[in-house]
Amino acid sequence: MSDVLISRLCIIGVGLIGGSLARALRDSNAVKEVIGCGRDIAHLQQAQQLGVIDHFVTDPAEAVKDADMVVLAVPLGAMQGIMQRIAPALTSGCILTDVGSAKGSVIIAAQNVFGEVPTFLIPGHPIAGTEKSGVEASFAGLFQDRRVILTPTETSAADAVQKVRAMWEACGADVVEMGVAHHDEILAATSHLPHMLAYALVDTLARMDDSREIFDFAAGGFRDFTRIASSDPDMWHDICLANHDALVKVLEAFSDDLRLLADAVRRADSDFLKDTFTRAKQARDGFCDNGD
Amino acid sequence: MSDVLISRLCIIGVGLIGGSLARALRDSNAVKEVIGCGRDIAHLQQAQQLGVIDHFVTDPAEAVKDADMVVLAVPLGAMQGIMQRIAPALTSGCILTDVGSAKGSVIIAAQNVFGEVPTFLIPGHPIAGTEKSGVEASFAGLFQDRRVILTPTETSAADAVQKVRAMWEACGADVVEMGVAHHDEILAATSHLPHMLAYALVDTLARMDDSREIFDFAAGGFRDFTRIASSDPDMWHDICLANHDALVKVLEAFSDDLRLLADAVRRADSDFLKDTFTRAKQARDGFCDNGD
Repeated sequence: MSDVLISRLCIIGVGLIGGSLARALRDSNAVKEVIGCGRDIAHLQQAQQLGVIDHFVTDPAEAVKDADMVVLAVPLGAMQGIMQRIAPALTSGCILTDVGSAKGSVIIAAQNVFGEVPTFLIPGHPIAGTEKSGVEASFAGLFQDRRVILTPTETSAADAVQKVRAMWEACGADVVEMGVAHHDEILAATSHLPHMLAYALVDTLARMDDSREIFDFAAGGFRDFTRIASSDPDMWHDICLANHDALVKVLEAFSDDLRLLADAVRRADSDFLKDTFTRAKQARDGFCDNGD
Repeated sequence: MSDVLISRLCIIGVGLIGGSLARALRDSNAVKEVIGCGRDIAHLQQAQQLGVIDHFVTDPAEAVKDADMVVLAVPLGAMQGIMQRIAPALTSGCILTDVGSAKGSVIIAAQNVFGEVPTFLIPGHPIAGTEKSGVEASFAGLFQDRRVILTPTETSAADAVQKVRAMWEACGADVVEMGVAHHDEILAATSHLPHMLAYALVDTLARMDDSREIFDFAAGGFRDFTRIASSDPDMWHDICLANHDALVKVLEAFSDDLRLLADAVRRADSDFLKDTFTRAKQARDGFCDNGD
């Protein structure tokens, strides 16, 4: 088994992402042993019964012992606390990575814990997921043909970057590297802002007098549009705080544009409406070439 | 063939909705003959070749001759002009209905043309469709298990309501009746507002400096969320003007709520964010019981 990519993988937070990563690495024989770590024993037992992990422990410091790869798949708000607990226990040569939806906050957490960004920390973010959560929703194909963004820093060890890249490639993912701030801006626009809009829309309608009837007449387009409002509230709370600055910026840009559009509707400005809708349709059709 | 529901059906506007209606009625043997009418001969020829319509004419007045059911499936902005042209040619006993996404504007158009709302006009709206358009996207199952809302007025003939209801039921639809203003409010909330948000979001991102890269990293959630921004811009322009008052009202309610949410993100108000996201998730999970 000497040519196995990862000998002992420790996944802290065995949910949709952590569980799917373990499944995918097992399927491609890229891992020898998977240790799961979390707070909920029943949940970890389920992960073990599903064959996602080999063993589990609830103490992060114990979990990372002898691991050559540690993946933090916990909510962003829990990252620093977990780092604090595992820092003294990490084995020399172990690589640390994460799957958080914002990367600047992970860097700051690491600086707070380690005093500087460790050379063995390679922040990562698989652009994959569903509105579902929990290990029971995990599946090996989640990352197939999906993007994984790595945001190594200037001090990151090249061999560590290479090994994290190989890990995700073993899951069928397309790995790219970019700067931390750039990642956070891109994700604020394509993911964090849409989630805010979906949550806000459903909440606005839910608080209307005839909300029951409103939802009763919602069609397929509304279901698609609001699917992401079924995402985990705690996770999204953490993302809002972690990617605060970039999110505030795109929220303001969008709010300004929405105000202009609402004004155009109010004054029945045909040209403005047609121009906006046409530009948007062209952009949407252009980036989704398959028409879906 | 004396027990066929509709002897001669005239569909003005043979696109996704008009074409799917013709296909569904043919499949259920509820119609004897289908006349298509539109401005584009190549388009009508295609509809005939696809077996959607039997014949076509481009003059609306000629198209409605001897029809016992006329369906207006044109953009809302074209309704009054078409009514004007067919009014003198409608056969006694013919029923007139439409498929517009707003109903108040159809009533006003009819009043303008006929001097009052005709007893034989039964406004209707199938809550079905995709972001695609054109007869080539039409299919017989489009209305299966979908809602169709009829908004008859006080003067509507009961037998005309019954026949339009039977027409949609023959397509597998679930037909309900409601008031005109109530329809327009419900649809503004569940359909017209989400379309505005999807168009505005895609347009906001498309005008950013790194838009190409932004769309490049968009994942499945973003595709779902923005799918409706691929809808026909002209049709949605018409809907904005036709359902102006109700749309302005929900746009304002949403904008107010979004401002509160943006403020909460800005000041990192954990309680506000968690409460909003949790309420929204519960509402979304509640109305989409199958979890989709």
